[in-house]
Amino acid sequence: MKALVYHGPGQKAWEEVPNPAIKDPTDAIVKVEVTTICGTDLHILKGDVPAVTDGRILGHEGVGVVTEVGADCKSVKVGDRVIISCISKCGTCDYCKAGLPSHCKTLGGIGWIFGHLIDGTQAEYVRVPYADNGLIPLPEGVSAEQGTMLSDILPTGYEIGVLNGAVKSGDVVAVIGAGPVGLAAIMTARTAGASAIIAVDTNKFRLDQSRDFGATETIEVDENIVQSLREFSSDGLGVDVAIEAVGVPATFGIALESVRPGGHVANIGVHGESVQFPLERHWINNLTITTGLVNAITAPELLEDIKNKAIAPEKFVTHRFTFDQFDQAYDTFTNAAEQEALKVIISNAQ
Amino acid sequence: MKALVYHGPGQKAWEEVPNPAIKDPTDAIVKVEVTTICGTDLHILKGDVPAVTDGRILGHEGVGVVTEVGADCKSVKVGDRVIISCISKCGTCDYCKAGLPSHCKTLGGIGWIFGHLIDGTQAEYVRVPYADNGLIPLPEGVSAEQGTMLSDILPTGYEIGVLNGAVKSGDVVAVIGAGPVGLAAIMTARTAGASAIIAVDTNKFRLDQSRDFGATETIEVDENIVQSLREFSSDGLGVDVAIEAVGVPATFGIALESVRPGGHVANIGVHGESVQFPLERHWINNLTITTGLVNAITAPELLEDIKNKAIAPEKFVTHRFTFDQFDQAYDTFTNAAEQEALKVIISNAQ
Repeated sequence: MKALVYHGPGQKAWEEVPNPAIKDPTDAIVKVEVTTICGTDLHILKGDVPAVTDGRILGHEGVGVVTEVGADCKSVKVGDRVIISCISKCGTCDYCKAGLPSHCKTLGGIGWIFGHLIDGTQAEYVRVPYADNGLIPLPEGVSAEQGTMLSDILPTGYEIGVLNGAVKSGDVVAVIGAGPVGLAAIMTARTAGASAIIAVDTNKFRLDQSRDFGATETIEVDENIVQSLREFSSDGLGVDVAIEAVGVPATFGIALESVRPGGHVANIGVHGESVQFPLERHWINNLTITTGLVNAITAPELLEDIKNKAIAPEKFVTHRFTFDQFDQAYDTFTNAAEQEALKVIISNAQ
Repeated sequence: MKALVYHGPGQKAWEEVPNPAIKDPTDAIVKVEVTTICGTDLHILKGDVPAVTDGRILGHEGVGVVTEVGADCKSVKVGDRVIISCISKCGTCDYCKAGLPSHCKTLGGIGWIFGHLIDGTQAEYVRVPYADNGLIPLPEGVSAEQGTMLSDILPTGYEIGVLNGAVKSGDVVAVIGAGPVGLAAIMTARTAGASAIIAVDTNKFRLDQSRDFGATETIEVDENIVQSLREFSSDGLGVDVAIEAVGVPATFGIALESVRPGGHVANIGVHGESVQFPLERHWINNLTITTGLVNAITAPELLEDIKNKAIAPEKFVTHRFTFDQFDQAYDTFTNAAEQEALKVIISNAQ
């Protein structure tokens, strides 16, 4: 088969590799129909994720058809059309049972293994461990592209942004960073009942897009951003929830300073450096700050939202490619802001 | 009357002042029977709280008898024996209604006003604003000393440590700092069902005391403290909840690093400087970090615990003085570690 293989920082190729095979009786093999690229894949290509080594097939999102199952697979059957969850899980360790498969102990404390510790979904076929837990049947009426947005991006915005941020009816919510993850938070904050959703970014295209995802206000970052955000609350004290979806100290600072006493700061961003936490001001403010890797346990709930047209994840898809255009797909996503790209879909054209 | 008056950094005196009078119809006057000194009072005396100005009577804890009520007081009556809550509250603003009177908007966003923005409880008499909300009847069978521990210290440990930390049955809880607030967290973590409570301090007396408050393990801080704490969890991943009860960067760091993925860090400490938050490690860890000023809304619940002998707050009282010994009381509390003091009680001997 062919697959997108990582060959060290800056190096990748769509090349011939051996087909994956069942290793454990709980494995399944999925023929990938549609996949996409995540910001994390770009981090890997920069060499930021040393656990990813030369020869690894990238990718942790996608929809496909089951072509083979191990002897212990109970619910997954050959021929099932499935969403591949970005989080693998044994389903039996205490983290999995507690709804935190992102830290599955059986998998060594990390549920994100596709395109990281094992071969991923940017390939014609992928081996899926614990397939009964990691594959979600794609219901009638939900497209493969919609389904692919449930592998990672939409649950990430919802679980780590909206649910961790405890967004509730009537809340004023600021989303700092209107890239795909921020837009996922915006889309799902709306279904959680937020009364105002303020998208914050430096990029005008993304801010324009954010309104289509549910943002009620947009604001470009300037030196008065914190004060501007606070003024969206009726009493000027700050927003109820600030969701950080960038991953740099400046945006974490904006989130922290724009939230009101008793408010929530939900960090989604993948950070590369330490941030300052001015506890001399915030010890008194009854804040709740959360961090986290997605658990992807809300995919069934989000599928219901898709079926009921409460959310429309196809809006993420701005560019479409076929498997033989993987390089172009990466180029487009790498320059997403200039290319006015959100999520790129790469399909098996056969 | 006589009162303990602040006269600028390092300066205080037990001196003659005018008696307080009803100003607003929701006020009451309480004759103070018993009061105590808080670490915050020491901060004020160091000049760390510039909002406290020359002439202010200090103190925000105590038990007394109501001697006068304003025309709009409905539940509080002359002759009632009451606990004075450290948090004043209008009871009608959105923060009070949300259970966050620590940020009462009617009081300017801060519910802690006694001995801060208005005269406090280290006096023969004190004016209590919104007396129906800020005074808690002292039930039969609960002593004045026990009641005084419900003004601030015990609700602080419980609300900002145990409840914010979401301590639940079976949890392994580390309490960093075994001063009075840490001991309050230890005492109430036990009633919340923690299976292990590890007291961490540099002071041997405090560690010894902590066992009497419910600590199941004690550990002196050394360079391996984080690893030592992690080993109290059965899988070595870290404690479920770390409660910071000191207020310096080093102890916040210990709390943050000793907690397991999915764990809670509850900051109680009053910090004077910014801390580092290594988000490059912790963005992935599904942590919840909370900060806060006490709301003191759990005093009724804690009173039930006292009546049912589930907690014994009289254990905090290591030293007793009378009003004419206020200087000695402050000296003892200022050198609490050497003096082996936890809370000092100052009583009106008349």
